[in-house]
Amino acid sequence: VVKREVVQLVTPGTVMQGRAVQEKENNYMVSVDTFDDDTYSLAACDLTTGECKTTMVAEDLEAVIQEIASFSPREIVVSSEVDEELIEWCERRLQLTVSVQDETELPAEMSYVLSDIEQTKLRQVTARLIAYFVRTQKRSLDHIQKAQYYTTKQFMSIDPDSKRNLELTETIRGKSKRGSLLGLLDKTVTAMGGRALKQWVERPLMDEEALSFRLNVVEALLDDFFVRQSLQEDLKHVYDVERLTGKVAFGSVNAREFVQLRQTLAKVPPIFEQLNSHHSPAIRKLVEGIDMCQSLRHRLDESILDDPPVSITEGNLLKDGYHEQLDQYRDAMRNGKAWIASLEQQEREATGIKSLKVGFNKVFGYYIEVTKANLNQLPEGRYERKQTLTNAERYITPELKEKEQLIFEAEEKSGQLEYELFLQLREEVKQYMKSLQQLAQTLATIDVLQSFAKLSDENRYVRPQFSQNRDVKITAGRHPVVEQSIDIGSYVANDVFMNEKRDMLLITGPNMAGKSTYMRQLALISVMAQIGCFVPADEAHLPKFDQIFTRIGAADDVAHGQSTFMVEMVETNRAVSKATEQSLILLDEIGRGTSTYDGMALAQAIVEHIHHDVGAKTLFSTHYHELTTLETELARLKNVHVSATEEDGKVVFLHRVIEGAADRSYGVYVAELADLPKNVIERAKTILSTLESQTQDADQSGQV
Amino acid sequence: VVKREVVQLVTPGTVMQGRAVQEKENNYMVSVDTFDDDTYSLAACDLTTGECKTTMVAEDLEAVIQEIASFSPREIVVSSEVDEELIEWCERRLQLTVSVQDETELPAEMSYVLSDIEQTKLRQVTARLIAYFVRTQKRSLDHIQKAQYYTTKQFMSIDPDSKRNLELTETIRGKSKRGSLLGLLDKTVTAMGGRALKQWVERPLMDEEALSFRLNVVEALLDDFFVRQSLQEDLKHVYDVERLTGKVAFGSVNAREFVQLRQTLAKVPPIFEQLNSHHSPAIRKLVEGIDMCQSLRHRLDESILDDPPVSITEGNLLKDGYHEQLDQYRDAMRNGKAWIASLEQQEREATGIKSLKVGFNKVFGYYIEVTKANLNQLPEGRYERKQTLTNAERYITPELKEKEQLIFEAEEKSGQLEYELFLQLREEVKQYMKSLQQLAQTLATIDVLQSFAKLSDENRYVRPQFSQNRDVKITAGRHPVVEQSIDIGSYVANDVFMNEKRDMLLITGPNMAGKSTYMRQLALISVMAQIGCFVPADEAHLPKFDQIFTRIGAADDVAHGQSTFMVEMVETNRAVSKATEQSLILLDEIGRGTSTYDGMALAQAIVEHIHHDVGAKTLFSTHYHELTTLETELARLKNVHVSATEEDGKVVFLHRVIEGAADRSYGVYVAELADLPKNVIERAKTILSTLESQTQDADQSGQV
Repeated sequence: VVKREVVQLVTPGTVMQGRAVQEKENNYMVSVDTFDDDTYSLAACDLTTGECKTTMVAEDLEAVIQEIASFSPREIVVSSEVDEELIEWCERRLQLTVSVQDETELPAEMSYVLSDIEQTKLRQVTARLIAYFVRTQKRSLDHIQKAQYYTTKQFMSIDPDSKRNLELTETIRGKSKRGSLLGLLDKTVTAMGGRALKQWVERPLMDEEALSFRLNVVEALLDDFFVRQSLQEDLKHVYDVERLTGKVAFGSVNAREFVQLRQTLAKVPPIFEQLNSHHSPAIRKLVEGIDMCQSLRHRLDESILDDPPVSITEGNLLKDGYHEQLDQYRDAMRNGKAWIASLEQQEREATGIKSLKVGFNKVFGYYIEVTKANLNQLPEGRYERKQTLTNAERYITPELKEKEQLIFEAEEKSGQLEYELFLQLREEVKQYMKSLQQLAQTLATIDVLQSFAKLSDENRYVRPQFSQNRDVKITAGRHPVVEQSIDIGSYVANDVFMNEKRDMLLITGPNMAGKSTYMRQLALISVMAQIGCFVPADEAHLPKFDQIFTRIGAADDVAHGQSTFMVEMVETNRAVSKATEQSLILLDEIGRGTSTYDGMALAQAIVEHIHHDVGAKTLFSTHYHELTTLETELARLKNVHVSATEEDGKVVFLHRVIEGAADRSYGVYVAELADLPKNVIERAKTILSTLESQTQDADQSGQV
Repeated sequence: VVKREVVQLVTPGTVMQGRAVQEKENNYMVSVDTFDDDTYSLAACDLTTGECKTTMVAEDLEAVIQEIASFSPREIVVSSEVDEELIEWCERRLQLTVSVQDETELPAEMSYVLSDIEQTKLRQVTARLIAYFVRTQKRSLDHIQKAQYYTTKQFMSIDPDSKRNLELTETIRGKSKRGSLLGLLDKTVTAMGGRALKQWVERPLMDEEALSFRLNVVEALLDDFFVRQSLQEDLKHVYDVERLTGKVAFGSVNAREFVQLRQTLAKVPPIFEQLNSHHSPAIRKLVEGIDMCQSLRHRLDESILDDPPVSITEGNLLKDGYHEQLDQYRDAMRNGKAWIASLEQQEREATGIKSLKVGFNKVFGYYIEVTKANLNQLPEGRYERKQTLTNAERYITPELKEKEQLIFEAEEKSGQLEYELFLQLREEVKQYMKSLQQLAQTLATIDVLQSFAKLSDENRYVRPQFSQNRDVKITAGRHPVVEQSIDIGSYVANDVFMNEKRDMLLITGPNMAGKSTYMRQLALISVMAQIGCFVPADEAHLPKFDQIFTRIGAADDVAHGQSTFMVEMVETNRAVSKATEQSLILLDEIGRGTSTYDGMALAQAIVEHIHHDVGAKTLFSTHYHELTTLETELARLKNVHVSATEEDGKVVFLHRVIEGAADRSYGVYVAELADLPKNVIERAKTILSTLESQTQDADQSGQV
């Protein structure tokens, strides 16, 4: 019997298996250090995959929180002297478990994690995280990879509220992946691909070269249906190598998982060969210099049986021929069993009792059974009586017991030996860990890119072109998620055209006509482009946005009992104070939460500020029709509107965005259709024309 | 063995038990007839309780739909020639099962249902409903009560959208009773009370006398803590007499349910005595002339055992002494069993075998068992051998088998007799049906009124006074549900004061400051007053409103993909075209779904129309600050606003409604607090003052 001592703390961030671990999601643990000079260092590590990253955040607390949130962790590790406010945010807003780890000295065998990191603040925060793992896990952590430095500038930044508003990874209602951008994009076949995709969506790229590479691969795969098809087929047989590697390091991998690893490795050569011989240089580059780990595959091939049990202490793990002593034990067992198997026939013939049989039970071991009816045929003293049943007697012989002893001993010894051999093998596999991790990343990347190609092919997406001059030119763009939810062909595509003369579009038009869809569409197309996916349009020229800000009114704010208007202003302030010329801002009906002139004045002041001082590409939807006169004053602002028309006495929204301001009498018209009393309609028209003439007067006298 | 033939159609409207039947909800089935003169007749019956009602609706289709919906039925019965449009509404909007019943002739034994109804259209629709029951149920329907005529004018009318907006019986999000007005009001102890309460909330009263009666009882119970306390205690032991009566009629009642009925009836005298001897005339009137059904109680007392089985075919239902023949059978059984019980001792002594025992199994019946070890002590031929076991032998004797035969026969006969006697009893109980139904209604009413008293006591509600002059005067009113969800004492109470000079209140102020709570509060207080409950205020004088209309923007409209603005106009139109001077209208930010001037013009025209042509009491909240100038033009409109202030750099909503228009620069102020760039704030202030001077110019020049 083998004993194993288990002393391990399982915390939300260190769960390795069970329901808490989502196949297609990482389980990051994060640590943050705060410094007196208002800088922050952050480290993140997924214990299930070994991935480890670290960065500096030099802005404000909100930026750190945003960076923490981008990892969706469940637990954060801090020193006991960390900033109180940070803790409060983590507990309240992000609902994280906060764990304290003051000791940051690492055991010698873990120091490699820090080998590529020089900056003291980064080394400290990373060491804190690893030291916490060492303290709580009390087992091998070899699979943790060297910490990699990244800078937040490498990625497009989207604050958590905007991510939520844009439904990038989950829907606002229901918090489900289905219905989100991620849900749409995910045609990945492997768990590793699913996790990688989510990381990509959380962090769109800024680097043109990396983007070109991804897009080149997608393009090549999109053009090569057969390679794509066979990749998908092959990837179906690929198990979660990343997490299997984690289990190898943890020493919790079993033989059945080795079979999964072996099966996966068997699929690698066909995958790699196809890609290696492809005419596209980008595709070839995908697998360049990646170890296919085929020596490991052969090692597992010769050692592990095809269908081993989950338990590793009860034998039946290893193949014959793998180990001489083991083979000898097995021979002994097999010989003994064969002898017993032949005993039944032999004794039947010797005694003439046809119903005589040889059996086995756990209490008495092997026995010979003779029914009472046949007892008289049995020569006295031939067997030794062992057990009496109602209808039969059971016997043993010394020879039978001797063979039994032999079998039992061989079984026990071979079980013990197999266990030891398996542990040796498991230790041996650890040397492949780094190669396996690299291979896993490669497979994940291939999976995500084939997913993009498949999706782009199915939905007629086009390759986005990144413009150097900040121009946006989207022809027949579609909202990728909304497009899926309505009948094929019925989605009304829209152009977006913005350049130095059209940095801001002021969108007017009735509710539900598609203003918000139009705005989100631009943001989602930009995100898709910057993760390297093709986009839903006939043609798309885009700048690389450094940040996206949204203020899109959500009903849920009310449920939180906050002042919607205060939230509106806080989010708007975030946009106008952090956005650059390189950013995208979406503002939906700013000012609706307060009185008309008040809101109108703020909306106008904000539009002017963005126009004069920020210069970000901005879509601004409003019911303040009066703002449309700004077009004449602000050189880079243009009016557009969503059109509506009447059909059979019903208002039909054409969902088409066209140049110019909306017709301002639309509301009265709808009221007429809704059959409001005639005198109400007439009166409304009179008031409206008075209001309009006032504004015109004011316009002419130049007061605004 | 007793056979029962079951031939019965179970449809959504005729479910009698199981998960589909909610304890505290009626399960009405509705039938509607349409006529060429644009009138409609309607009948509704709850098969589980026997309640049956009928009315005429003379308005439009929408009014019928509203009336149907007020019963929350699952099924509707119509003739095959009914109006197509009605069917479509029922299927699409209300999602009812539509069943066709053309035959309207009733069997003679059911004609009593129509005995109080003279009008042909009413007789026809009621007969259609009952005929459908007769055809599908194929069993006794004796419990269906005489149809009662009611007119919709007896009740305050609230359209389904407004019921939903006000969350009368369920919340908008989650559709749960908890969080709704009904959820708050329900302190009922019995299922009957719960159902009655829901009916009351669905149909507030217009009749002053009926209201006074309810309020008098509530007042008396509120003042008499001890009577209320003991009522609640007693009612806990009251079962659902209404539905038990339905089961009596259906012939599906079992003995266990009779025990429930008996226990309930035992609680009636203490309840009634307390009320009968009470000093309040209203309380005494509650139970005046109501049969306590004590003869039935005695009948059940003498007949049914205390803990009978659910099955009525296997005996053990009836008490000893209830029936002579049954007693004889039981004597036989008991004697036989006693003889067998004594047999063991007797034979042990006779044989000297101490381990001898008498047993019973289903296959062999009674036997005497002797272990093999003692077989030698057994005199040869004393018993007859029956069964051999491994360690024992089992025997019988002729006398044992004779007694056994006697017991079996008596058992079978007594089971059969008990079943027959039980059916007779069940038949006999039918004669109490009408009395039981009346008693059930009385108990339900008592339960609802004690629930009102308890609630009013706990929450310091006051008795509403109905004013003859249409004045509203609420001092320190509270929203009953919101008040519960926040800390005790922190709710800010508000006055509502409306009279002939203040028919309309125009409410301005920032979002989330409490405008919508203030409006709903008035509606809920009015509903509570008109169902006879005390209300959350220090003092409340109210008119009896004939209808309540609301147009309160709900986020969910968007989810339905409709044009919110079209919905807004349709609901507004319903209010302005159907409301009378006696009605209450709540309009929340009319016009927000379209462009500013457009919406402002409509809002003003609607305000003017209600003011000049409708005259209903109206609360109108708006962000169109410009409408506040209407106060000078419209004699019966007054401005009020919700106030806000600053504390520690945060905006605090005081939730207090005070006279006058809101400060229109509130929004800019919040923007300042949210830290928007200084130049934005300054610019907004400049624009605002320009806009304001424009309006003032316009006001002075009398253009609006």
